[in-house]
Amino acid sequence: MGRKGDAGRQGGERGDMGIVTMITDFGDSDWFVGAVKSAILRVNPSCVIADVTHSIPRHDVRYGAYVLASVFRAFPPRTVHLAVVDPGVGSERLAIAAEIDGRYFVGPDNGLLSECLSTATYARFVRLSIPLSASATFHARDVFAPAAARLSKGCRIHELGEAVSSVMTFDIPYPQLVPEPGVVAGQVRHVDRFGNLITNLPNRLLELGPVYLQNRQLRKVSCYAEGGVRELVVLPGSNGTAEIAVNGGNAQEISGATGGTEVRVAIN
Amino acid sequence: MGRKGDAGRQGGERGDMGIVTMITDFGDSDWFVGAVKSAILRVNPSCVIADVTHSIPRHDVRYGAYVLASVFRAFPPRTVHLAVVDPGVGSERLAIAAEIDGRYFVGPDNGLLSECLSTATYARFVRLSIPLSASATFHARDVFAPAAARLSKGCRIHELGEAVSSVMTFDIPYPQLVPEPGVVAGQVRHVDRFGNLITNLPNRLLELGPVYLQNRQLRKVSCYAEGGVRELVVLPGSNGTAEIAVNGGNAQEISGATGGTEVRVAIN
Amino acid sequence: MGRKGDAGRQGGERGDMGIVTMITDFGDSDWFVGAVKSAILRVNPSCVIADVTHSIPRHDVRYGAYVLASVFRAFPPRTVHLAVVDPGVGSERLAIAAEIDGRYFVGPDNGLLSECLSTATYARFVRLSIPLSASATFHARDVFAPAAARLSKGCRIHELGEAVSSVMTFDIPYPQLVPEPGVVAGQVRHVDRFGNLITNLPNRLLELGPVYLQNRQLRKVSCYAEGGVRELVVLPGSNGTAEIAVNGGNAQEISGATGGTEVRVAIN
Repeated sequence: MGRKGDAGRQGGERGDMGIVTMITDFGDSDWFVGAVKSAILRVNPSCVIADVTHSIPRHDVRYGAYVLASVFRAFPPRTVHLAVVDPGVGSERLAIAAEIDGRYFVGPDNGLLSECLSTATYARFVRLSIPLSASATFHARDVFAPAAARLSKGCRIHELGEAVSSVMTFDIPYPQLVPEPGVVAGQVRHVDRFGNLITNLPNRLLELGPVYLQNRQLRKVSCYAEGGVRELVVLPGSNGTAEIAVNGGNAQEISGATGGTEVRVAIN
Repeated sequence: MGRKGDAGRQGGERGDMGIVTMITDFGDSDWFVGAVKSAILRVNPSCVIADVTHSIPRHDVRYGAYVLASVFRAFPPRTVHLAVVDPGVGSERLAIAAEIDGRYFVGPDNGLLSECLSTATYARFVRLSIPLSASATFHARDVFAPAAARLSKGCRIHELGEAVSSVMTFDIPYPQLVPEPGVVAGQVRHVDRFGNLITNLPNRLLELGPVYLQNRQLRKVSCYAEGGVRELVVLPGSNGTAEIAVNGGNAQEISGATGGTEVRVAIN
Repeated sequence: MGRKGDAGRQGGERGDMGIVTMITDFGDSDWFVGAVKSAILRVNPSCVIADVTHSIPRHDVRYGAYVLASVFRAFPPRTVHLAVVDPGVGSERLAIAAEIDGRYFVGPDNGLLSECLSTATYARFVRLSIPLSASATFHARDVFAPAAARLSKGCRIHELGEAVSSVMTFDIPYPQLVPEPGVVAGQVRHVDRFGNLITNLPNRLLELGPVYLQNRQLRKVSCYAEGGVRELVVLPGSNGTAEIAVNGGNAQEISGATGGTEVRVAIN
């Protein structure tokens, strides 16, 4: 089995154990997560398996793509991300592996890579063949896990299948200039566990002018604790985009905003 | 500490770290999962601990047995499955370890092995002794975890306790022939996270005749995506038995079926 | 990077991989858990990361302190506990690392160590510096994870920052003598997943006299299974304090008790 030169490795010999992360919509009460782990460990018993989340809302490929992109580059080089939100399992949709900026992805070709690719320096893709014995309802176990485990052991991506030149992507909602001069319209992308409204406005836009949610101007702060009681504030988020929060409270409940709600910046 | 010959091993030297899976009804908001992991790592600090699920419904031994059997043989040889759904902890029920087809089980003797044993080639059992210091409410930490960790390091099962000739099992609901000629009556065993109805009808029965749920004949498909909008379809499941699903929807919600609902095959 | 002598180690060479546990209120559906794991594995790719829980109720520092203390000493010496329940992230509150009885803690200085310290033999603390590049909303990723990973590789605590002489603690509700002679008043500290009422009465108090919940005397048993149908019983808990339970049932639902409800022992 081929191996990349050691130059690109981190962590010395033990790093050779390999890291596979899991990002799925499998939930945590079925046997699915265990079955995928078993298929990885059968090929690479020393693999470090890092659960990222199994609680992607079922079939929500867009949210899966968001979470995947949020952690993709943060893991060490050669990490394999097994990301499976796969309503089309067993259909004509391709099973793929990808190498993007030194990390790997294995999963369905249904748009999960859209956000990773939007900022990629380089990428290449291969199509995984589906063994006849694979269950048409569980490619994560029968196709993706074995491929991920092989990559984690040093297998090169071109050994896994035939190259393909592109993969499916969907449009990512970027902030837009609107007819009113100097106004940038973004939106809430996601509400996190704490009720914070994660927008698609890059943090640096916060310096350019006031931010409005539902026609209300938001005070800018630098950390949650600076907010007042039940006060909606905006601050730079840890994922690169601005978030709207309430100190010790829940911005979603207090604002009623949700995914898709518009958030505006009036450039000074 | 005794070791089996290397012949039965997979994965070379690093595989010696050992794998322990966890299947419990401990939930994920208490300190129980952490306490069990600490007890494993104290004995084998290099152990690979694979969380399968901690969300077995509390005290639901039958569902625990189903999940355990679903992953038992899929993990590499010598994997130790620590499965604990244990309403009788601290009572007269035995604490046991088992070796079945090259994998290990450690847990209470309350039927958790029923489904694994129904397809076993060979099995042997030992009774674990309960240290005086063990808490009568937490054998997972004080009895099962140390035993699992010792097995993961290469300890032989007979070193853990006195052999016992059998363990508790409960009846598994297999499909039945019914008075109507050529009809096999199975049932829904379980509803998965996606609302799919997992039956106890072996996949191969699908080829023998039409399948009926609540007197409605179901169209047979080979993957979820072949189903129509809100159409209940039946297809071969990844766990060896047929499942009833709705493409992009929730078969449980649409059918109203649940665990125990009858599913029939009319053999042609 | 400095290393302690091998004398204090367990588990031989592979134990050098290091263990980091995670105790957070991050939930399991965001990218936060993955981001922290990535930051640990970038520094120590061979680290054993043990998820204890990510389901601390959001911002519930007191419950986080309880869970942390419940597992702190049970893990092998040199284990690093990354515990983050951090409503004050990015504010003036300090970021700290602590060494207590041979284990490490990394997290915010907001009382999370209160219960660990209440039984500590020795402890020392350092203040972690906050890099300019750290996000003010995610110190777990940018401050605590790198520090935890360095400790897991053998770094000494004084290499991480400047010593501080004390950290924030809050009062822990211990049982109290009340005006009535011979009566000790404790309380329900926590309700676990099974509905058991975990009190703050040390197990040994159970031997000294009858126990009352809401003026009802509770029968003492030694394991759950000894309780009658819907009977509230009291028994020694696995965490060192008495718990009130119902065999096969839910003590919280049956009693209506909750965190803070008084539980009395009348010393004979």
